[in-house]
Amino acid sequence: MTVSRVEAFSDGVFAVAITLLVLQFADPGASQGNLLAALLGQWPLLVTYVASFLTVGVIWVNHHTIFSGIKQADRTLQFINLVLLLFVVLVPYPTQLLAHYLQQPGTNGSVAAAFYGVVMTGMGISFQTLVVWALTHPKLLNPKVDVARIRSTIPRYSIGLLVYAASIGLAFLNPWLVVALYAFSAVYYAFNQLPWTHEEE
Amino acid sequence: MTVSRVEAFSDGVFAVAITLLVLQFADPGASQGNLLAALLGQWPLLVTYVASFLTVGVIWVNHHTIFSGIKQADRTLQFINLVLLLFVVLVPYPTQLLAHYLQQPGTNGSVAAAFYGVVMTGMGISFQTLVVWALTHPKLLNPKVDVARIRSTIPRYSIGLLVYAASIGLAFLNPWLVVALYAFSAVYYAFNQLPWTHEEE
Amino acid sequence: MTVSRVEAFSDGVFAVAITLLVLQFADPGASQGNLLAALLGQWPLLVTYVASFLTVGVIWVNHHTIFSGIKQADRTLQFINLVLLLFVVLVPYPTQLLAHYLQQPGTNGSVAAAFYGVVMTGMGISFQTLVVWALTHPKLLNPKVDVARIRSTIPRYSIGLLVYAASIGLAFLNPWLVVALYAFSAVYYAFNQLPWTHEEE
Amino acid sequence: MTVSRVEAFSDGVFAVAITLLVLQFADPGASQGNLLAALLGQWPLLVTYVASFLTVGVIWVNHHTIFSGIKQADRTLQFINLVLLLFVVLVPYPTQLLAHYLQQPGTNGSVAAAFYGVVMTGMGISFQTLVVWALTHPKLLNPKVDVARIRSTIPRYSIGLLVYAASIGLAFLNPWLVVALYAFSAVYYAFNQLPWTHEEE
Repeated sequence: MTVSRVEAFSDGVFAVAITLLVLQFADPGASQGNLLAALLGQWPLLVTYVASFLTVGVIWVNHHTIFSGIKQADRTLQFINLVLLLFVVLVPYPTQLLAHYLQQPGTNGSVAAAFYGVVMTGMGISFQTLVVWALTHPKLLNPKVDVARIRSTIPRYSIGLLVYAASIGLAFLNPWLVVALYAFSAVYYAFNQLPWTHEEE
Repeated sequence: MTVSRVEAFSDGVFAVAITLLVLQFADPGASQGNLLAALLGQWPLLVTYVASFLTVGVIWVNHHTIFSGIKQADRTLQFINLVLLLFVVLVPYPTQLLAHYLQQPGTNGSVAAAFYGVVMTGMGISFQTLVVWALTHPKLLNPKVDVARIRSTIPRYSIGLLVYAASIGLAFLNPWLVVALYAFSAVYYAFNQLPWTHEEE
Repeated sequence: MTVSRVEAFSDGVFAVAITLLVLQFADPGASQGNLLAALLGQWPLLVTYVASFLTVGVIWVNHHTIFSGIKQADRTLQFINLVLLLFVVLVPYPTQLLAHYLQQPGTNGSVAAAFYGVVMTGMGISFQTLVVWALTHPKLLNPKVDVARIRSTIPRYSIGLLVYAASIGLAFLNPWLVVALYAFSAVYYAFNQLPWTHEEE
Repeated sequence: MTVSRVEAFSDGVFAVAITLLVLQFADPGASQGNLLAALLGQWPLLVTYVASFLTVGVIWVNHHTIFSGIKQADRTLQFINLVLLLFVVLVPYPTQLLAHYLQQPGTNGSVAAAFYGVVMTGMGISFQTLVVWALTHPKLLNPKVDVARIRSTIPRYSIGLLVYAASIGLAFLNPWLVVALYAFSAVYYAFNQLPWTHEEE
């Protein structure tokens, strides 16, 4: 099976999931003259929106890179991809919860941040599984893919996954740490992408 | 008419329909300190989400396989495809109902599960009609498609349809059986896809 | 400018607009044991869903056919296409209103049906304008397009537009006539498409 | 990295964001016989819908033109594109707020219009940054792109950005000026697109 339609479907799901993030923004129902204050009070929505948008966007960019090196998608790869998309589609839900509970006193903010971390870590693990599956099945790969070189980056990405997983515990220290971590990771990975093929260097 | 735009449009509809499944998740409105309990209480949403996501995902993978063997889409095929998409787009509605009524005592859970079964069976019948139409109109097919071999799989898929249809009745025994059936079928079909062309073996 | 990305964007908009039709279905909030009656009472939602789905679906199929004969999209054509999409995106709103007000006594049902007719007629006029613009600018067309033959179908399609426009008045006789008219037209046009190129005969 | 998937993903996001604009339209909940008045009272929704639809549509058309001249997307270009999409996805929110608060007396209408101007200006600045990045990195461009000629249009587009930015202040004079400005700009840019390549003249 050629990969072009797997890519097309995945692009569609990424595009819709990232766009549905806007639905968490709702009219604050301001009365006479206090819309400015009401909008400024929505800043947690903006912060979580940016963190989730960049994280999903960067996963998509890396997904794009991976698939440019894959010439054939076997059934297992398609199934792993489906599980990855299952997490991607979920993202707007924890994002919305996090924005809502982030400022509540007590444990709700930590629970929301931990749930956010769980979904993000699930997305990261699925993505890493996809990469490992492709790397260990060279017949699925384009000849131009430099397997040895990508393998050398797996430790760096595994550390990334550990950080993601650690964020679940971190949530109980301070939920804001979780948001900061994902926003920072997204920008970091945006400029430190997988060196999948020689051409892209 | 070439099939590439039929595929592009279908991919778009599948991608959006599968992504709208997230909209059933809504903030449980937890007050001080009980968000964890409220989220854990949403597990029926997660179970029906996974069942529907995998079912639609697997139909999409098979749709992908079918169209890789079709070189031309006549008007009837386009119309059957439109009816299939009409069912695919509906899926988020019975999914949401099922999650909501699954745990209610009385007959509402069974009615919701039966309605879920009806939409899923409609999707299955439309899909099977598409396959049969393509197989009985060889001029629409790529020469590389092995018609005899696919015909031999029709009995197996017809049993699948019977199981789908039976789920409508099963709903009145126990609505959970319906969810389990679709989740199981999706995983089964993910790894037992249509052997449409030799190349894909 | 090549047409492939105009097609890709249009396909995306058609796919999302048609999929958002599902959002009119909402949990009827049934209490103990009356879900079946509540669901059966939602049949106007199903009828308007099918009418709108098929109408948009058939416009999309014809859009597909038109663009298969266009080799270049000038600025005016892109703008007409944008206006067409502006109407396509609106469709879920009149659909939802029609389903809701169809059964109310008094004039609300007729107003909702007339509004539905206005949006559908706007969509039809935009589409016909696109066809006429393409036909009167042969340098935009593929050489294989048989201009004379398509011109001969314009009267038939113009009658279609008159029927669409008449539906706005018809709404005040009986809103159901409007729904029936669009459902019938969609099926009629599905099997009587534009004979754009010889190959498609 | 080839640009085709960057384009595909961007098209998907544009298509979904533009289609979600319909979600601001909600059943006005008319009682017996007053649906017509209720619908006519929704005209601010229609005006802001058209202004946002055309603005996003025209940005998309120009995005399309830019990418037809780009042969390779480096990491920075992808990141700028992601930031552009981050603003595009936001658009339905200020659109909905503007429609709701436009007619309220007091400062809320101005605040909503200024917020609308901020998001639109953010979108414009991101887009212009994308163009400038591409122009200053000729190795990313197709040889057929006429760099000198596009550079000569930058002053004209910079004036456009200044007008966009000025709209934020204008909102406090009269929020309607903002809506009129964006609707007018969209139609103006639709017919005065970037002369990116010779072929498109």
